[in-house]
Amino acid sequence: MRAWSDVAADLVAVAAGRAPADTVIRNGAWVNVHSREVIPHTDIAIKAGRFAYCGADASHCIGPDTRIIDAGGRYMIPGLCDGHMHIESGMLTVTEFARAVIPHGTTSMFVDPHEVANVLGLRGVRLMHDEAMAQPINVYVQMPSCAPSAPGLETTGFEISPEDVAEAMAWPNIIGLGEMMNFPGVVNGDPKMLAEIAATQMAGKTVGGHYASPDLGPAFSAYVAGGPADDHEGTREEDAIARVRQGMRAMLRLGSAWYDVESQITAVTEKGLDPRSFILCTDDCHSGTLVNDGHMNRVVRHAIACGCDPLIALQMATINTATHFGLEREIGSITPGRRADMILTSDLRSLPIETVIARGEVVAKDGDILCDRPDFRWPEDSRGTVNMKADLTAEAFDIAAPSGRNSVRARVIGMVENQAPTKALEADLPVVDGLVGMDRAKDVCQIALVERHRATGGVVNAFVSGFGYDVDCAVASTVAHDSHHMIVIGTNKADMAIAANTLRRVGGGIVVIKDGKEIALVELPIAGLMSDAPARDVAAAADRMVAAMAECGCTLNNAYMQHSLLALVVIPELRISDLGLVDVTKFERTDLIVG
Amino acid sequence: MRAWSDVAADLVAVAAGRAPADTVIRNGAWVNVHSREVIPHTDIAIKAGRFAYCGADASHCIGPDTRIIDAGGRYMIPGLCDGHMHIESGMLTVTEFARAVIPHGTTSMFVDPHEVANVLGLRGVRLMHDEAMAQPINVYVQMPSCAPSAPGLETTGFEISPEDVAEAMAWPNIIGLGEMMNFPGVVNGDPKMLAEIAATQMAGKTVGGHYASPDLGPAFSAYVAGGPADDHEGTREEDAIARVRQGMRAMLRLGSAWYDVESQITAVTEKGLDPRSFILCTDDCHSGTLVNDGHMNRVVRHAIACGCDPLIALQMATINTATHFGLEREIGSITPGRRADMILTSDLRSLPIETVIARGEVVAKDGDILCDRPDFRWPEDSRGTVNMKADLTAEAFDIAAPSGRNSVRARVIGMVENQAPTKALEADLPVVDGLVGMDRAKDVCQIALVERHRATGGVVNAFVSGFGYDVDCAVASTVAHDSHHMIVIGTNKADMAIAANTLRRVGGGIVVIKDGKEIALVELPIAGLMSDAPARDVAAAADRMVAAMAECGCTLNNAYMQHSLLALVVIPELRISDLGLVDVTKFERTDLIVG
Repeated sequence: MRAWSDVAADLVAVAAGRAPADTVIRNGAWVNVHSREVIPHTDIAIKAGRFAYCGADASHCIGPDTRIIDAGGRYMIPGLCDGHMHIESGMLTVTEFARAVIPHGTTSMFVDPHEVANVLGLRGVRLMHDEAMAQPINVYVQMPSCAPSAPGLETTGFEISPEDVAEAMAWPNIIGLGEMMNFPGVVNGDPKMLAEIAATQMAGKTVGGHYASPDLGPAFSAYVAGGPADDHEGTREEDAIARVRQGMRAMLRLGSAWYDVESQITAVTEKGLDPRSFILCTDDCHSGTLVNDGHMNRVVRHAIACGCDPLIALQMATINTATHFGLEREIGSITPGRRADMILTSDLRSLPIETVIARGEVVAKDGDILCDRPDFRWPEDSRGTVNMKADLTAEAFDIAAPSGRNSVRARVIGMVENQAPTKALEADLPVVDGLVGMDRAKDVCQIALVERHRATGGVVNAFVSGFGYDVDCAVASTVAHDSHHMIVIGTNKADMAIAANTLRRVGGGIVVIKDGKEIALVELPIAGLMSDAPARDVAAAADRMVAAMAECGCTLNNAYMQHSLLALVVIPELRISDLGLVDVTKFERTDLIVG
Repeated sequence: MRAWSDVAADLVAVAAGRAPADTVIRNGAWVNVHSREVIPHTDIAIKAGRFAYCGADASHCIGPDTRIIDAGGRYMIPGLCDGHMHIESGMLTVTEFARAVIPHGTTSMFVDPHEVANVLGLRGVRLMHDEAMAQPINVYVQMPSCAPSAPGLETTGFEISPEDVAEAMAWPNIIGLGEMMNFPGVVNGDPKMLAEIAATQMAGKTVGGHYASPDLGPAFSAYVAGGPADDHEGTREEDAIARVRQGMRAMLRLGSAWYDVESQITAVTEKGLDPRSFILCTDDCHSGTLVNDGHMNRVVRHAIACGCDPLIALQMATINTATHFGLEREIGSITPGRRADMILTSDLRSLPIETVIARGEVVAKDGDILCDRPDFRWPEDSRGTVNMKADLTAEAFDIAAPSGRNSVRARVIGMVENQAPTKALEADLPVVDGLVGMDRAKDVCQIALVERHRATGGVVNAFVSGFGYDVDCAVASTVAHDSHHMIVIGTNKADMAIAANTLRRVGGGIVVIKDGKEIALVELPIAGLMSDAPARDVAAAADRMVAAMAECGCTLNNAYMQHSLLALVVIPELRISDLGLVDVTKFERTDLIVG
């Protein structure tokens, strides 16, 4: 994409009528996100992938080779922006994610590849960055800030340092720092966290925030004083209001499993706050959501359904986002000089995405993608990252009991339906042949964290309750936030071994084993996190995987997400990591056997 | 001023209650320009010149040495920003200008030193830049773009090149490019103008605009496509609307002689446009206005008087400006991390400026300035810039008639009351002893452009009508936009010589000679444009000068401004330059004698 200044002479010539446009769109209703107006009977001229003229009559911009698109009075809205998201949540490469969302009208995304960073380090971030640059839409990359998310409580494949951050800030497509999740670190003045923020600020880029606490007192103020410029972790109206008052952008999130728009948008619709500091985002979207429900068009529709004025909702997904990232003269509105990213739609509320134009090219029409797949291939060494020492046997999952005991009292990770936090439970479990057993009747089965970055052979075993598995089965996943080792959960140790070894063989993904047989497999060969298959195929495989979990007796609404978060040692109360069981209320390791 | 990232650890510690603030302001009504709310009972803690905490109770930020200021329930508003202005219009140095406006609550200015650039070139811009950095408030400098303003029609002391622009973009205090006045150049794709814009855009800085035409058709669109990001030349509601719709910021101007707020702010107050793209500025303020009427406080009050909501008017002079220049995390709001620039006022409409705090220090109280004068002195070679070849005699102003004529028909520059444009008049004038004479009865006197940059000895003579001078007199000024040679207007050639020679002797300024005697003198020793005396003294001298012009019979409302604009060869219809008489309807030189 050539810079505005590189093509300014061409844009000026088209606007002045001295040179023909590449494309002219006639007779649209211009949704102007600067003035917050709809201006009917507007023509748009495009040259070199940028808007050259926006006004009442572009006749003077038309030459013999100019392509004419008749908008037929439909609305012309800027291409939609996702203000913060993780591509990896879709289990797709950047390329396939982009191909999934382009027909939904997304033309800009701000992606934080912190899952890949944990597995492949700075090199993985660079690969995401390079793949992002190859897309026909704008995929800006936030440099991940927190790998590991909880230093000392887990071992990641790689760690991110302030020096890495400083280095990445010079890459052409890095837009800022990814969400600063270590909010206790910032509040406590951790020099490493402040150094990462400083490197970003000195580069003139935007520091992403993540303040996942309901405490809006001095701790929140201290976090703000540390420098993060936005936050998408708010869930209540008061969270959004507090962020905006403190000079942050409140990012309102509607992901596959996040529903934080409705509860916060009342800050605008009812409390009347200036909407300019509000931004819509998805954070995490599964491929199934992208295939079936949409992307930012889904979020904008939802915001409107929550009572937000359609023009204000569109501002929250276009110019507000662009302004936040210092890009308001590059993307986010249909005005001269900006990248020619726009949508034709016949209704501002239901928002059918009829035609999508990115950088002046029609990239999708009526749901079908029309642009070529970019030529980017992940290198071989980004595959086969399930680096286990050897195949596991059932014995790897043995939990030895203290000698001479018939039963023990053990800590059990307790699932909570529809919530990310777990409960720190305890259960009395039988001892057979010196090994602590499971208790299917009480829904207590085993969970194992299988080390997979450095082939240490490490397996940490513990117990979990709440999935409801009631047959011999095991589910394993190399998506295991944030360190992305492998989490295996099962009622049967032999099946657990089969599950782990299957993922070792295919290079990662999610597998469901029942009675010794594989009944579902989602292959995620890239970093054990992503597939380079199309979203539709991945979504189908994921659907099959969810169904297979249910066939094993699982009753949770979002069983797979619950599964993959059990190693996220920053969310209370009890988690598992490669270093052991972690009490996340105290941020310290704890013993499996209580007594 | 240390960067936020340099003091982040200190700010975090204060906000968290681990370290004491330097200053705490208690119990104010927080005017929050992000949320557009007033939040009563708010405390503010300041550390290292920046806001550290803004919230309900800063008790935890107070130590034994913390200075406490009781706001007593008064409003706390961000320090005011002037979005575009020329310091030189005040005939003051940056230091004295700042001292004049600080008690009015101005804490940030965006200054385009294009007058100095014409006289002293890039070195003069650097001096302004360096003086700006020495101030206790934020004076950001825009690199002048158009010296000369009309290439080929005038000779300036220095010219600005794209290379100069690129060089200046690396200076620490350059915020962008000054108003791109050569709008025909941009519209016509002039490579030099586009190169200046490109150098600015590549540096990630803001391109100032100046589109001084009522034509909102393709020419305007072409100008926008060229890259300018704002414009302050609009005068009508439709001008403001057009600029905002095209993705520019509409800068609404209330200067000493510009009244463009009332006619344009209806775009917000009546048409309901999103106000975020509107910015208030002064462009040009005389020292008398600063002394008697105020500065940005005057503009905000005026906007409110025009029907604008006070909070929206304040946004237009704070956060909107900061956002436009990419500074919203540095200035423009009272929020953590930003420079601690704020005002205490007891009324949001009449806006009395009771206490002014800049970078955490109380710099003014109840109209009195409390901060020290910064230690900046203009070097000797910036003085004595009236570089004439020799003193002039009355004969230098002789206008030879074609031989053998008793009278001639000559072109006459016609003044228009209260307007900058002139009329291209003609008059029949007597010839005496071979010289064309003036005609006091018809109010036709002489005007001369005296070259003063390169000591060429050049004097261009012509006629002017409309000042009303009815005695033997002359008025000379080295403020002669934009090339700033010397303009001498008089009814008597001997007085004209005395006037010119007086300015040569004192190094520039404005002088009024009546009957051979000096009756008023404003000395402007720096570049012939600025005084380093306090604003009050300069305003008094300027008042005396205006009165002296009236004593000579002058009837114009803004005689001095009219005088100083007569060499501005970009405003129609007829002007004078060092190269001759200029027809500004055709942008070409023309003859004095018609026939």
